[in-house]
Amino acid sequence: MSKIISQYWRLDKRPKNEIEDNCLSLHKEEIAFPEEGEILFRVIYLSLDATNRLWMGDMEELYIAPVPLGEPMYGFVLVEAIESRNDKFKKGDLAIGLATWSEYIISDGSNFTPFPKPNGFPLEAAFGVLAVAGPTAYFGLLDIGQPKAGETVVVTAAAGAVGSLVGQIAKMKGCHVVGLAGSEEKCRWLTDELGFDAAINYKKENMLEALKKHCPDGIDVHFENVGGEVLEAALTLMNLKGRIVVCGLISMYNKDMRQSGPRMFHNTIMKRLRIEGFVVLDYADRFPEAHAVLSQWMQTGRLKYRLDIAEGIESSVNSLRRLYSGANNGKMMVRYSPAPE
Amino acid sequence: MSKIISQYWRLDKRPKNEIEDNCLSLHKEEIAFPEEGEILFRVIYLSLDATNRLWMGDMEELYIAPVPLGEPMYGFVLVEAIESRNDKFKKGDLAIGLATWSEYIISDGSNFTPFPKPNGFPLEAAFGVLAVAGPTAYFGLLDIGQPKAGETVVVTAAAGAVGSLVGQIAKMKGCHVVGLAGSEEKCRWLTDELGFDAAINYKKENMLEALKKHCPDGIDVHFENVGGEVLEAALTLMNLKGRIVVCGLISMYNKDMRQSGPRMFHNTIMKRLRIEGFVVLDYADRFPEAHAVLSQWMQTGRLKYRLDIAEGIESSVNSLRRLYSGANNGKMMVRYSPAPE
Repeated sequence: MSKIISQYWRLDKRPKNEIEDNCLSLHKEEIAFPEEGEILFRVIYLSLDATNRLWMGDMEELYIAPVPLGEPMYGFVLVEAIESRNDKFKKGDLAIGLATWSEYIISDGSNFTPFPKPNGFPLEAAFGVLAVAGPTAYFGLLDIGQPKAGETVVVTAAAGAVGSLVGQIAKMKGCHVVGLAGSEEKCRWLTDELGFDAAINYKKENMLEALKKHCPDGIDVHFENVGGEVLEAALTLMNLKGRIVVCGLISMYNKDMRQSGPRMFHNTIMKRLRIEGFVVLDYADRFPEAHAVLSQWMQTGRLKYRLDIAEGIESSVNSLRRLYSGANNGKMMVRYSPAPE
Repeated sequence: MSKIISQYWRLDKRPKNEIEDNCLSLHKEEIAFPEEGEILFRVIYLSLDATNRLWMGDMEELYIAPVPLGEPMYGFVLVEAIESRNDKFKKGDLAIGLATWSEYIISDGSNFTPFPKPNGFPLEAAFGVLAVAGPTAYFGLLDIGQPKAGETVVVTAAAGAVGSLVGQIAKMKGCHVVGLAGSEEKCRWLTDELGFDAAINYKKENMLEALKKHCPDGIDVHFENVGGEVLEAALTLMNLKGRIVVCGLISMYNKDMRQSGPRMFHNTIMKRLRIEGFVVLDYADRFPEAHAVLSQWMQTGRLKYRLDIAEGIESSVNSLRRLYSGANNGKMMVRYSPAPE
């Protein structure tokens, strides 16, 4: 095997608010041939997810170990085994896992799961929808939110990777679905293409008034990706025995989260609400269930999606910023190397 | 029947913060003899509960209709039928229900439930423990909190009517129990008499530090009666998959609840918390279950309690204020008339 030079992103400084230019830097390293028990993976796609920003911080209560300073940044990747001295993966096998932002990875395979080639839709869609966003939407909405036919479901960041799936699954369950998004174009996509009953442009409309208008029977399930003002508006309008799925609080991740909390919290009592936090990693054992159902929906065209794919490892940091600014259109990911034929 | 003059409390003004002197006034009315289908009840005890304060307000989202201005105030009472023209209750029967703060009540019986004479403990204890506080502690802790043996349970307002029962039930379930109360005497009662593992005087100690010290393994179930700073301290220390039972937010009821919310809310995600609001009225159908179990525990001395009984209808308002100041010692109630032999 010829010598392989791999680029990787290193975390140099924990971002305080925005991810400044000196927080991460791109480096090169030489990759050794795998030893007995190891696999050499080539990274095809990196998934960018809002939660990645948290891993750069040093919040004491973070649900996984934060990225150590001076070490490679990590995220969810789709990889192909290009050399293997491990029975778990043979050359040519595809896998997904939580790994470093690197072009090549040497691993014993323990943090990777085999990823079958999709049937009836492209690999990039399989990874973009099924790896993280799909199970998040599937378990968060169905297990935690427990929507029933006829109920009203509100989704924030509804044009995002998770939100767009949540709304479509809620529609399949017979719910009245209202989404919030940050542009007219995104709102039109939600109503015209994905079948949402209504979409609210939170940059233009008063959220409480707009939610009141589009949820005339109140809110039964609120799927929260954002937090802050919209969460308070939802708390205000929740119905008796409503459920709030706290999947993300992206509006708070760039601030000091110790300094603010949702007003209208007393409605937890008044309306007997159940507010439940959720991290999709807890459902790792049940991913095959979600993959089977979601794949079926993708094959038959029932589940629509948009991918926003940047090119090359260099664009990783800007792609994460793009996700935080809401400038992305659909699932944000980076192509590190070409997908196999 | 000789003419009966009954005193009752009328709500004249909704309190803004404290319950000012001009919010309620005491009046007299003449009670007519019951008509066909009606019962004349004599009120024996009025229960004072923190939630009564909310019923005086005009919060839009209140879980029951607020007391109309110019109408009698209401609360939970123990009554004896002294005349009856209704098959549901005969003369001498005891009943509990949500009714007006009055010495005598004419009713069709629909909002009253028969209340059996207790066996092995006094009537005042039966009413004080079983009518409201007992079912609240029982269902709130067991159904919503779901404590398991070996887990750590924290209770706020722990020397109060509900909190003192919650802590004792949690001990019976094999939990490590830590209570917060507002005086050294109350704290001693919790640890020395009720068997709490630790008690924290929130007026003297730093709550976060004290909770850290007494909950070395973190908090699994937090039973919230108070809200504000202690809720934030609990949110900070909750364990993975912890449960927060939101039973009361007494520290917020005298303020504008729309202006503040708990910080550290992001821990709902980090620790996958379930925060659930709770109103005991939802469990009315299951009160007999709670009464049976709690009565058994009271008869055998496993469940201890303190009653703080004021005398005469005149003391009703001051007794509610006493509850809010924390000056009460145990379950706050008012004796309107002597208990039957």
